[in-house]
Amino acid sequence: MEPKPISRKEPLPGVKNIVAVYAAKGGVGKSTVAVNLAVALAKQGFKAGLLDADVHGPNIPLMMGLNQRPPVSDDNKITPLVAHGVKFTSIGVLKDVRLPLIWRGPMVHGAVQQLLRDTRWGDLDFLIVDLPPGTGDAQLTVTQTVPLAGVIFVTTPQKVSLADGVKGIGMFKKLNVPVIGLIENMSGFTCPECHHVTDIFSKGGGEKEAKNWNMNFLGDIPLDPNIVAGGDSGTPIVVSHPSSPAATAFFKIADQVTHFVKNVSFIGG
Amino acid sequence: MEPKPISRKEPLPGVKNIVAVYAAKGGVGKSTVAVNLAVALAKQGFKAGLLDADVHGPNIPLMMGLNQRPPVSDDNKITPLVAHGVKFTSIGVLKDVRLPLIWRGPMVHGAVQQLLRDTRWGDLDFLIVDLPPGTGDAQLTVTQTVPLAGVIFVTTPQKVSLADGVKGIGMFKKLNVPVIGLIENMSGFTCPECHHVTDIFSKGGGEKEAKNWNMNFLGDIPLDPNIVAGGDSGTPIVVSHPSSPAATAFFKIADQVTHFVKNVSFIGG
Repeated sequence: MEPKPISRKEPLPGVKNIVAVYAAKGGVGKSTVAVNLAVALAKQGFKAGLLDADVHGPNIPLMMGLNQRPPVSDDNKITPLVAHGVKFTSIGVLKDVRLPLIWRGPMVHGAVQQLLRDTRWGDLDFLIVDLPPGTGDAQLTVTQTVPLAGVIFVTTPQKVSLADGVKGIGMFKKLNVPVIGLIENMSGFTCPECHHVTDIFSKGGGEKEAKNWNMNFLGDIPLDPNIVAGGDSGTPIVVSHPSSPAATAFFKIADQVTHFVKNVSFIGG
Repeated sequence: MEPKPISRKEPLPGVKNIVAVYAAKGGVGKSTVAVNLAVALAKQGFKAGLLDADVHGPNIPLMMGLNQRPPVSDDNKITPLVAHGVKFTSIGVLKDVRLPLIWRGPMVHGAVQQLLRDTRWGDLDFLIVDLPPGTGDAQLTVTQTVPLAGVIFVTTPQKVSLADGVKGIGMFKKLNVPVIGLIENMSGFTCPECHHVTDIFSKGGGEKEAKNWNMNFLGDIPLDPNIVAGGDSGTPIVVSHPSSPAATAFFKIADQVTHFVKNVSFIGG
């Protein structure tokens, strides 16, 4: 019997679909999208996990309301924390949050590999990976060592954000990662007093950019103070205000992700 | 006569004060602050320059309304472009904007050194340097090779942004860079229809954080669609709407920067 050939991309046992959430630029709400997408999938009955690989701003534990170190066994296996029905680990809890994190490339690679492979994920339908912004070692590690069902791009509507975005799209195309689509975040603000809508960060740039790159537009998420408050308090808006326009947008995005991976037949296997 | 000792930090000839603008996290409006601060100083009669060292999102040329390559002489000296009375160069115009920029450490060091030393800045009262977010080679190059009059931190009000911020503050303290102070950006939004104020990204976190770290709070800048539109169109809000609350905040910050560097007696020498 032939030995099994060692593939460069080794699946995570028990994990059906790994989906990366990415933004070329920080501060566009990428982690917020990752958290709300994972929790929305859990609320829809899927087994969902969330891996915070954002070396420069690992905010997932704060946003999930459980900012603590996960239990690590003697053989260095990490038991993920669970909040809002989602199993999660974060690169942030591996380090003291008040120290500057000057990560060198090989350290990033090692830490991301550890979080991917040494976490006891169990059976998952979806593992959402929150990548750091920019183009660096974390992206390369994730895209080159595990099979990704796809990547979701997050942008804000204004030109200066979109100008950065194209660089990231080029990177993932080069790495042959399937593209699920693009989300426009911070898209329009409705005054709670008079319901006047102001497009503070402009509007529609994301949909145009998606067309330019021939990718699915997954929807726009309005600015909502409850999204920010939910991130700070550890209760994502899909839990705290599940009927709000923003939460509704997240649930629709979750549907599209499910639909996408069904079509590429990763799920249900 | 003794030869002049070679200092590790070599001043830029003709440049009196080098001020870095920094954010631990991208997307908080750091480049917007750098642009409006430089243009505000120019409008106040100072000779101002602006260096875009943000490898991951070099947006200054777009925001200054002059997105083109500067003239480079045969001996590789760069003539800075001029817009709104400010001389500027950008790491972005050294590369094709549609290619992914996967910068390695030594490349970043070389490019930042080139922009600092090989640009014909002439006489400047202030050179504002827009650093990339995070903790990496660009920050180390700038802080270790030129004398900085000080650094300005930019944050947004919410906890998740502030949690990232502390890491950057630690880095600059370690590198012994004088701290000018902290700016809270995206602080409150006034509905243009009914004038109701909504603190979309929370409020007051920046002032608290400045107190925690015993640094000056330089002021808060409200959310204003004209700031974003100004960035996209290349006309900063201190030019397009100089009497707006946001522009007024920028002019006050410029006053505080002038005051700070006078006190440390870099200026006027």
